[in-house]
Amino acid sequence: MRISDMVEREIVEIFKNAPYEDERVVVGPGDDDCAIVNIGGNYLAITTDMVHETTDFPTGMTPEEIGFMAIAVNLSDLASCGADPAFCLLSAGLPGELEKEILERIVDGVLECLQRYRVALIGGDVDYHEELTLSATGIGIFPEGRFLTRKGAEVGDYVYVTGPLGAAEYILERLRNNETREEINNIELLFKPTPKIQEGRDILASGVGKCMTDISDSLAVSLYDLSRASNVGFEIYKDRLPIFEEAVSFYGKERAIELSLYGGGDFQLLFTSERRDLRYPCIGKVVAEGIYLVDECGGREQIIEKGYSHFR
Amino acid sequence: MRISDMVEREIVEIFKNAPYEDERVVVGPGDDDCAIVNIGGNYLAITTDMVHETTDFPTGMTPEEIGFMAIAVNLSDLASCGADPAFCLLSAGLPGELEKEILERIVDGVLECLQRYRVALIGGDVDYHEELTLSATGIGIFPEGRFLTRKGAEVGDYVYVTGPLGAAEYILERLRNNETREEINNIELLFKPTPKIQEGRDILASGVGKCMTDISDSLAVSLYDLSRASNVGFEIYKDRLPIFEEAVSFYGKERAIELSLYGGGDFQLLFTSERRDLRYPCIGKVVAEGIYLVDECGGREQIIEKGYSHFR
Repeated sequence: MRISDMVEREIVEIFKNAPYEDERVVVGPGDDDCAIVNIGGNYLAITTDMVHETTDFPTGMTPEEIGFMAIAVNLSDLASCGADPAFCLLSAGLPGELEKEILERIVDGVLECLQRYRVALIGGDVDYHEELTLSATGIGIFPEGRFLTRKGAEVGDYVYVTGPLGAAEYILERLRNNETREEINNIELLFKPTPKIQEGRDILASGVGKCMTDISDSLAVSLYDLSRASNVGFEIYKDRLPIFEEAVSFYGKERAIELSLYGGGDFQLLFTSERRDLRYPCIGKVVAEGIYLVDECGGREQIIEKGYSHFR
Repeated sequence: MRISDMVEREIVEIFKNAPYEDERVVVGPGDDDCAIVNIGGNYLAITTDMVHETTDFPTGMTPEEIGFMAIAVNLSDLASCGADPAFCLLSAGLPGELEKEILERIVDGVLECLQRYRVALIGGDVDYHEELTLSATGIGIFPEGRFLTRKGAEVGDYVYVTGPLGAAEYILERLRNNETREEINNIELLFKPTPKIQEGRDILASGVGKCMTDISDSLAVSLYDLSRASNVGFEIYKDRLPIFEEAVSFYGKERAIELSLYGGGDFQLLFTSERRDLRYPCIGKVVAEGIYLVDECGGREQIIEKGYSHFR
């Protein structure tokens, strides 16, 4: 069997034969968006993501946006457990024919993202590569000595997201239809998405969150992740989904809802809380089992586990 | 200007515009083999290396050895400051046509290395890539609350290495002459080198080391690194160089000495100590300035800064 015949989960499974149990590892590999380790009583969140030209940089993305993205995907993982990002390492595989000026613009994007979130670049590696490849590791701390994971949702909790959904996929579709970035509003929602660091910190520090994850593949995939980790189900209210308004005027409401459920690339957080008065869009409730979309008349349809995947 | 017209140092310089000073960063990027950060009084060593097919996997290397190498290069960096390796993250860029069985063998090599040095795999990322690419981050701790860097050598110190030099380059040259791995003894010195974790730990914990680095590009490059960081020079005694014996019988003594000075790929440590009675090969002394090779008759020639570089 070839790699191209396998789905991502099967590939990850091969790596999961963790050879060494370490009592300092509080949250292990594959269980969550970040690993969490205990260093002498201080918790650290650690995550890594590798982005590269073929998969991750749609046509029209600027070098600065490519650099920003390489860091931001890691910071979004750190945000998902409420961590305060502290350090970053970045390895760059660079095609020999890349112009120095383009590399400088990529690095400008890297530095802009690091600076905005006050993250120190502490190491890296450079080498020739056939394909532009940026591999970053992000490390965050928890000043409160607590953290949020995918585990912890309880029946009766309210389900929240930090902002509109489906924007990135909507913009990507328009680009695929040969529109240019100049023709599309809010292009930064796809090309320069904002990791929800402050939101993640607030949800953790205020004590209102019970479990949290980021939405990178799709809301649907993230709901299934929380469901497995917390052993619960979800009812999501169709009319409460914070759909991306431009997608409605462009595609109509049904397609915009579809994109908000199954579109990838949005940098939002999904969390649950006992509280019903939070400032974020409340999209549903935690139930004992099943993951359903409920419409205004009480009609229910199952949300299926699909979204963006490199290995689709 | 294109990347292919630049040397590694020029490229790294572009990344060095560190955007944010963080008081927790004790040893910063580019200054040493690892970054060292202070997490609530506990020091952590952190390093990252990306290896890929074109540059790092000579013909004849097995998938297991490729996996082992991806981890070992990081552990060698951790060894260079005396750290006890604790955690590792690994991202894998996988060609679609790669056979599942080959991936399983690569992962076997990864796990063998992690297991041997009791390192927990805490995260990673997988994606399709045109070229097989493995990017790992290693994190180590310092149980003694102290660490070694390239800084600290003082005039009068003795200079030590942890073992024979020039072996990896010698084996690589024979492979380049179209010999097969079966024809070459000790092929593992190139294909499955051993990071000197225990040696690094001993040199730190016993308190005998004053500065330390690993020899990855060449002894010459590492001497220049120590020289810059410690602001000292070196006299290296030609007859004390622990040359690789097989290279002598194959190439003659002069060429073997050449390889021990300028060959890359050996996983040894270079350190200085006030003590002259250590169990490692003592190859010279720290002097005020200049980096010289001194022969039996007192003849001196300058050691030049050259060695293996991806960007040569």
